[in-house]
Amino acid sequence: MIFRPATRAELPAVLALLADEEQVVDPASVVVTAAYERAFADIDGDPRNEMLVLVDGELVVGCLQATYIPGLGKGGAERCLIEAVRIRADRRGGGLGRELMRRAVERARERGCGLVQLTSDKRRTEAHRFYASLGFARSHDGFKLPLQPPAPACLASWPG
Amino acid sequence: MIFRPATRAELPAVLALLADEEQVVDPASVVVTAAYERAFADIDGDPRNEMLVLVDGELVVGCLQATYIPGLGKGGAERCLIEAVRIRADRRGGGLGRELMRRAVERARERGCGLVQLTSDKRRTEAHRFYASLGFARSHDGFKLPLQPPAPACLASWPG
Repeated sequence: MIFRPATRAELPAVLALLADEEQVVDPASVVVTAAYERAFADIDGDPRNEMLVLVDGELVVGCLQATYIPGLGKGGAERCLIEAVRIRADRRGGGLGRELMRRAVERARERGCGLVQLTSDKRRTEAHRFYASLGFARSHDGFKLPLQPPAPACLASWPG
Repeated sequence: MIFRPATRAELPAVLALLADEEQVVDPASVVVTAAYERAFADIDGDPRNEMLVLVDGELVVGCLQATYIPGLGKGGAERCLIEAVRIRADRRGGGLGRELMRRAVERARERGCGLVQLTSDKRRTEAHRFYASLGFARSHDGFKLPLQPPAPACLASWPG
């Protein structure tokens, strides 16, 4: 089982994993829009972001995004934020999630991070037990504010 | 009231704000270690990180760190993570926190972010009411795992 940054060729497989809630999504059915291409290139080109995948043979079976954040707390150490944790629907329940997280935490430790942090939807109580079993403390509440893009200037006085 | 990225000259004032829990800490009393120098340079040199300050005249009265995270969710839009929100102890209760957050959200929106997110310690119920009043939904639980650095290789077989 290999754990490493995803390649561009694996982008459809990663998007399929992220779309996969209850059953496997076929990567061939995924539309890779220009926005996703750009977002992947942004992650791939940023030394503080990684889209990490767990690969079994040729198959991408898990993924997560790690962001390494410089900061003035924790004595100046980076913190690692983990997002977009997924295991392929037909490979759940066999310890792959634990393996994925274990390797991500180890990678953050080797990098010198002082902390790993993540948030999980309050309704996902099973995920909460999983993170607690890995040693994470549920010490914080997570707040989100969705944004709408501002209207283009040409619409500012429309309909006038 | 000015809102902009902190300058290197303001680093002691920002560290004083971050150390300031109940009463004002004098920036002149802050020891700016090499680790803090490096962390500030990392933030300042990274196009996806900003240490933002609210400045009244010559006085830094508030700060927060914004991290703009590229990602494959939200149609490929960046999300803005906010950390280290502080208002100077002797300037609280006058709406400056609201002004600081309002400007940070506006900055994220103008940048094209699809979401602003933050976490707050579960014990800080007053802060939770504040974020809710700004439109944030408390939808997630925040998990943290502090890391110890790995032992240096020379100690691997010690005491042997």
